[in-house]
Amino acid sequence: MFKHRHLLGLGKLTAEDIAYILRLTASFKEIIDRDVKKFPTLKGKAVVNLFYEASTRTRNSFELAAKYLSADTISFASSGSSVEKGETLKDTAKTLEMMGVDAIVIRHGSSGAAEFLSRHVRVPVINAGDGTHEHPTQALLDMFTVMEKKGTLSGLKVAIVGDILHSRVARSNIFGFTKMGAEVYVAGPATLMPPDVEKTGARLAGTVDEAVKDADVVMALRIQLERQKKGMFPTAKEYSGFFGINGERLKLAKPDALLLHPGPVNRGLELCSEVVDGLQSLINEQVRNGVAVRMAVLYILIGGGRK
Amino acid sequence: MFKHRHLLGLGKLTAEDIAYILRLTASFKEIIDRDVKKFPTLKGKAVVNLFYEASTRTRNSFELAAKYLSADTISFASSGSSVEKGETLKDTAKTLEMMGVDAIVIRHGSSGAAEFLSRHVRVPVINAGDGTHEHPTQALLDMFTVMEKKGTLSGLKVAIVGDILHSRVARSNIFGFTKMGAEVYVAGPATLMPPDVEKTGARLAGTVDEAVKDADVVMALRIQLERQKKGMFPTAKEYSGFFGINGERLKLAKPDALLLHPGPVNRGLELCSEVVDGLQSLINEQVRNGVAVRMAVLYILIGGGRK
Amino acid sequence: MFKHRHLLGLGKLTAEDIAYILRLTASFKEIIDRDVKKFPTLKGKAVVNLFYEASTRTRNSFELAAKYLSADTISFASSGSSVEKGETLKDTAKTLEMMGVDAIVIRHGSSGAAEFLSRHVRVPVINAGDGTHEHPTQALLDMFTVMEKKGTLSGLKVAIVGDILHSRVARSNIFGFTKMGAEVYVAGPATLMPPDVEKTGARLAGTVDEAVKDADVVMALRIQLERQKKGMFPTAKEYSGFFGINGERLKLAKPDALLLHPGPVNRGLELCSEVVDGLQSLINEQVRNGVAVRMAVLYILIGGGRK
Repeated sequence: MFKHRHLLGLGKLTAEDIAYILRLTASFKEIIDRDVKKFPTLKGKAVVNLFYEASTRTRNSFELAAKYLSADTISFASSGSSVEKGETLKDTAKTLEMMGVDAIVIRHGSSGAAEFLSRHVRVPVINAGDGTHEHPTQALLDMFTVMEKKGTLSGLKVAIVGDILHSRVARSNIFGFTKMGAEVYVAGPATLMPPDVEKTGARLAGTVDEAVKDADVVMALRIQLERQKKGMFPTAKEYSGFFGINGERLKLAKPDALLLHPGPVNRGLELCSEVVDGLQSLINEQVRNGVAVRMAVLYILIGGGRK
Repeated sequence: MFKHRHLLGLGKLTAEDIAYILRLTASFKEIIDRDVKKFPTLKGKAVVNLFYEASTRTRNSFELAAKYLSADTISFASSGSSVEKGETLKDTAKTLEMMGVDAIVIRHGSSGAAEFLSRHVRVPVINAGDGTHEHPTQALLDMFTVMEKKGTLSGLKVAIVGDILHSRVARSNIFGFTKMGAEVYVAGPATLMPPDVEKTGARLAGTVDEAVKDADVVMALRIQLERQKKGMFPTAKEYSGFFGINGERLKLAKPDALLLHPGPVNRGLELCSEVVDGLQSLINEQVRNGVAVRMAVLYILIGGGRK
Repeated sequence: MFKHRHLLGLGKLTAEDIAYILRLTASFKEIIDRDVKKFPTLKGKAVVNLFYEASTRTRNSFELAAKYLSADTISFASSGSSVEKGETLKDTAKTLEMMGVDAIVIRHGSSGAAEFLSRHVRVPVINAGDGTHEHPTQALLDMFTVMEKKGTLSGLKVAIVGDILHSRVARSNIFGFTKMGAEVYVAGPATLMPPDVEKTGARLAGTVDEAVKDADVVMALRIQLERQKKGMFPTAKEYSGFFGINGERLKLAKPDALLLHPGPVNRGLELCSEVVDGLQSLINEQVRNGVAVRMAVLYILIGGGRK
């Protein structure tokens, strides 16, 4: 069914690959929704969370997904240490492989770190975010969340708004939604828009309003305040006015449009509190689905769902 | 039996509630004393330790209690980050709830953080210490420790000595022991005594000696040295002379008086080493009982011991 | 079989003790090599990793070993805190003992910390590295790695090269290999050589080449760059020229000589990349064997292998 050894990004998966993961996610979701959360599936397997960047949401989500499947987990947090050299990363991962871990979940500040790793270890590598490259499980949970509500992704208009340039979430979602037949429009500050964004399959909207207009899905990205401090346009205040999603702007989308955000939200910046907590917001549902997606991915790569 | 959804503090529990927890604690204690430490009770449940303040004792105690009951545990340590805004705390907890955790154990620097949280999530919240407000499982283990030795709490004289003003341990113990029929006397530096301490149910002793005289239980509080550095009276040296418990002072209490301390002890400051390691000291026993109390609380709130 | 309650160092073990651990290690290795990694052996036991110094390799290895044996694990990381006073260490360990843990794995910056601890708690203490004193499980895995390839340790020539003065790995290996009948030669900068090194059982070689000549085993130690910064000879650059092991130097040893390093390697400093990744290198195998050794030690001390 799934012939890949690793999950490095959605850019390399086919629509069939993605559909397979989303189907399995639906199965896991159905079971955990009944509050059955302990499966013997990965008993005797060990998963390491190798996080070179701070993360609570993604790390806890992977850790819980592994534990719900009865895998052992260990955490390797190296936040605080500056981006490490490829060689060191390789040696670290090799060490963990030699200790008998069955999968490496990696988050790293350098684009390509996950793929680099996959060339040096024999165990499955799961990309939990690498630099500005990809964050495939985030995009999978976003797609699953939309699929649950809309029944299909095909033919939907998806607006992604924010700092597209630095966003691995945006990249993975552009790849994923496009492959599944949706049309993805991107909008955001010109200074934060990659020059070749249309090569990724997205369409560049002139303004946020244009992207959001008649959209089925509106996805706001998290503004990384630390990057904004450099004195560039836009400042935080300018951002919320020009690019933030508030109730009025959301009304430009279809009446039943869904609002997504990868979290954590900067309330009042990329999203107003009214829309965060509004009826169209699926932000909490995204978190819930994240656990099911990661259970599906772990099951596929180390539990026998591959081959 | 126990109709509360959360354990936020002893101020809101009845004597019956407390007695029920202490009875269950006795059952768990009996079993772990036989070195049987793995129960399937909470298999398939997940407990998160959400600690916004440093802690080793309480965090490890909760983690072991959960593991002894076969629950999965995840840790969320955000020490280092300054006290976070209520909104952020709420979003963090909501995220953990959405991931399917069955209980949130929270320690936070702000009084009221646990109750605030309990209003925003549907899963049980257990207060592991919030600001200067309450630390209910500490008081429960203190009461259990005394009950084991004395058979009852009713009619006992309990002396609590130290920085009453900032001590959530003192507050929870005043509420708990008083409800169970003990008389609680407090003593300490006037600068560290809440003006309205008698409204909490305690009696204000004029001196430490007066509080300790004929007491059945002497509880010394930990002096938080970081607070003392501000140049206020008393300095560390003055403290041990005026308010520290040494062998001589302890002789003022009943001959079979019990010595408690929530730990970790500043030896030579609030307690002399001779009394820490003396025959009346129950400090190690308190730690042991802490695990049993937390097993009881987790069992009650998420294992079917409620309602 | 094994009459010691703790594993504090190899200095106090007999050859029979060591042989017993290595035999049990072989059994565990055989099973995990078949990718069976979950044993119920230590179910209901709890192991605490009490690490006062940073470590990823040793800590993860112990944690996985415990988990593969179905023990619960908790971590107590106090890195960042300066070396703590013995009394505090004692109180911390006593607290963990009272919580019901069945073994304490300790790493500490002070030589003798593990033995100190063993005098104050009743549960087994396993030394995971104490100051410049001993690191017994590292030496056991080194010996096991050599034994697997050579069939015996007796009569082998072992060269240990580097900062012998500060190396607990070197000390434990000198004790271990010597007891098992090997001849251990040490070489390194005179400034980093203990004056009484021959009293430990090692022979002092005049030069690295002399130590390596005709050796069966060449073990390079990790240079702790932080110590070298003090302006002493040798600098990093001088070190690699005078004392580093490269392909040419390794040719002085027997053709089938084995290359060991406790990791992580400073590539280009104590070892050239060509030898790290060369055919004689057993560095990855050492890591793999480390897990089996620690499973054996945990099994012996808390699982019924003692008595």
